[in-house]
Formats: sequence, structure tokens, C-alpha cells
Amino acid sequence: MKKIAVCLSGCGFLDGAEIHESVLTLLAIDQAGAKAVCCAPDINQAQVVDHLSKSPAAGTRNVLAESARIARGEIVNIKKLVAADVDALIFPGGFGAAKNLCSFATDGANCHVNADVEKFAGDILAARKPIGAICIAPALLARIVGKKDLHPKLTIGTDKGTADAINKMGAQHCTCAVTEMVVDEKYKIVSTPAYMLGRGPAEVFEGIRKLVGEVLRLCA
Amino acid sequence: MKKIAVCLSGCGFLDGAEIHESVLTLLAIDQAGAKAVCCAPDINQAQVVDHLSKSPAAGTRNVLAESARIARGEIVNIKKLVAADVDALIFPGGFGAAKNLCSFATDGANCHVNADVEKFAGDILAARKPIGAICIAPALLARIVGKKDLHPKLTIGTDKGTADAINKMGAQHCTCAVTEMVVDEKYKIVSTPAYMLGRGPAEVFEGIRKLVGEVLRLCA
Repeated sequence: MKKIAVCLSGCGFLDGAEIHESVLTLLAIDQAGAKAVCCAPDINQAQVVDHLSKSPAAGTRNVLAESARIARGEIVNIKKLVAADVDALIFPGGFGAAKNLCSFATDGANCHVNADVEKFAGDILAARKPIGAICIAPALLARIVGKKDLHPKLTIGTDKGTADAINKMGAQHCTCAVTEMVVDEKYKIVSTPAYMLGRGPAEVFEGIRKLVGEVLRLCA
Repeated sequence: MKKIAVCLSGCGFLDGAEIHESVLTLLAIDQAGAKAVCCAPDINQAQVVDHLSKSPAAGTRNVLAESARIARGEIVNIKKLVAADVDALIFPGGFGAAKNLCSFATDGANCHVNADVEKFAGDILAARKPIGAICIAPALLARIVGKKDLHPKLTIGTDKGTADAINKMGAQHCTCAVTEMVVDEKYKIVSTPAYMLGRGPAEVFEGIRKLVGEVLRLCA
């Protein structure tokens, strides 16, 4: 049974992992007969956002503990994972990918990446295992691969500002519909726009289901 | 387009709504061409649980604001909904259904139900519109209908203690597999065990997809 690490970034699209994208990734993995290994860094969130008022809220929340809500408690500190533990890695989106896993939301193309996330993703790349990136997560991945002078094709859909930043970091942005995905066969990297474009879970799931299928194909 | 109220109870299976069940309900509704209207009561959670350590945590969280994470901000206070606004009502599970929407987790068959939830569910029943209840939520529903001297068939799977409590509240518990559901045609009530029995999102989704299909059929 193939094992796919799913790197979460909290629990809620404004300050953590996008919940629909995360659950739909877990659903697609389970439906395909593979096993998800949820992981996240053990750090505080960059901020807490009230998802009702959409305004910053008081308090601190831990990315690993909040991600555990999506993972139903079955989650590991990403620092403890090595590439040999899994066959592939997928990053769901949400602002957490751009605020907690890296600083893209504030620093754009000059963002820094969480050291544990960068190490694990780098090990997966070095092992020639596939990586999937959903929604805004391709911006995180562009920064990781760009620093290694790798130039994969990636998509975040159609948003020009984000696409320009992805190109600036060294990747090659391709426009893509929500129900489709972009595959880079050379680097074994798959991406889909999800809620960068999606209007609801059904069409987001269509793109994510295809992404998971391609990631599993590239594991072979 | 049919509109289905989805009553959430927080965000995380140990102190709020079960996230997979909630998202998979939204997915099934969207795939069926219907519209979800997320709602929740505007109250504090009964407790906050750290989903990594599975121990109680400090702080207070608001059920409506946390539920908004699952609803991507598109959510209404259940107090503001009336039966005429929707065609049906679905309750996903999670301990939130048994701790926040009612007190079943601590008081069993003698539990009290949040007044706003009880009012809205009562209006839906009186309007002869269907109700779906997932996982532990049938215990909540058993209390609501039992106080009205209604005796529908319900399932929470196979757990004897919970089944006995449901019978004590006046409903008729039926055992059921995770991928199936129980339909009470007379009262238009549908239930499925989900994570009361489920081992992962694929089989939970199978039961929820069938439940949503039956709820929509009963809207007609």
C-alpha cells in the first residue's frame, strides 16, 4: 500500500490549512487504496483569524495541534519524517501554507520556508518521489525548488500576481482550470488550483482526485 | 435548487463537528446539485480539546466562529433560520453534536438540547421536511423528537450503550453498516453511522452520499 505524506498547516483557510482541500485529499487517497500520513510542523501559527468576522483574533494556536483536528489525532511532527517513510508528499492549500509553512503571504517571492518543511520536501525531491501541491501551496513549493535551481511547471490557476511571483522564484507557471491539474513529469510535481478558482467542493474534488491519481502513478 | 441546512457544532471531532463528516456532507450536497446553508448556534463550546494530546485545553472557543472554518466563512446563526428558508436539515456528527448542540455526552438520555437548535429542528419536523443525522447526531435528534412523542427509526451503527439511550429517549434504534443508512419514511428522517464505525473517509463518504441522496429524495 502506497503511503502519502499530507503536510497540513493548521485548520481553517484564513490562518491554516484549507479544510475542504485537506479532507478531499484524504478522501481521494483513501478511495485510491493508499494510506495518508498526516504531518505538520510543531510551531505556533503566524496568526489566528476569526473565520466568522474574517478579522485577526487574540491568542496563539499551534500548527501541529490544530492540524490534528483535520487528521482526527493521527498526525506526526514533520521533523520526525524521512523520505524513506513515504512514497510521496502532498501539500493542501489555505493561507496556512503561505503564512505558517512559509512567509509567502507577507514576503512574496523572497519568502523563507519553515526549516523542517524545507528539509523534508528536499529529501522527497532528492529521492525522486512525487510531490503534489494544491491551491496556494505551489507558491511554497516554487520557493523550495527554486532555491535548488529546479524549474518545474506549476499552477495556481489564473491569478496573475501569484503566477508572476511563482515565475520569479524560478518555476514555470501554467494556467489551469479548477477541475484539471498540471503535471511536471521531469520533477514528478503535480499541482491543481482548487479554491484559488473553485466555487465549491465538487469541482475542487475533481481536480484533487486527478492530482492524487497522478501522484500515485508517478510513485510507480 | 434544493437548499439543505447543515448544522455544525464547532471544528474538530473531540470538541466540535467531525470535520470529515461535515466536509463530505458539503461535497455530497454540491455533487447532487443542491446548495448547503451552513448554520450553528452562537454559543461557547462546552470545552476545548487539544486534538494532538486528546486532553482538555485552556481557553474558550465559540461554536459559530469555529464552525465558520469548515464553512469557509459562509455560515449563519441558526437562530436566524426558519423552516421556510430551506428544504431539509442535516446534522453531521462529532462530539460537538453531543456536547454543544445538546448535553448527551454528559447527561445521556436525560440531556437537554440547545434552545435554538431544538426550535429550528422542531420547525423542520412540523413543516414535514426531511432531517439527516450522521454519526452521534441521531442521539441529539432522538431527544428532540422524543420530547414530541415521535418514535422514528434511527441508527448510530452498533454501539450498545448509545443504542440503548436512543431507545430510552423514544426512538427505535436499528443496527447499520457504515456504508449504509436507515430511512424512516414516515418521519422523513435518515441516519448513517459514519465515524461511529468508519475506518476512513472513503467508507464514511459512501454512507453520507447515500444519506444526502435520500434526504433530497424525501424533499420532493
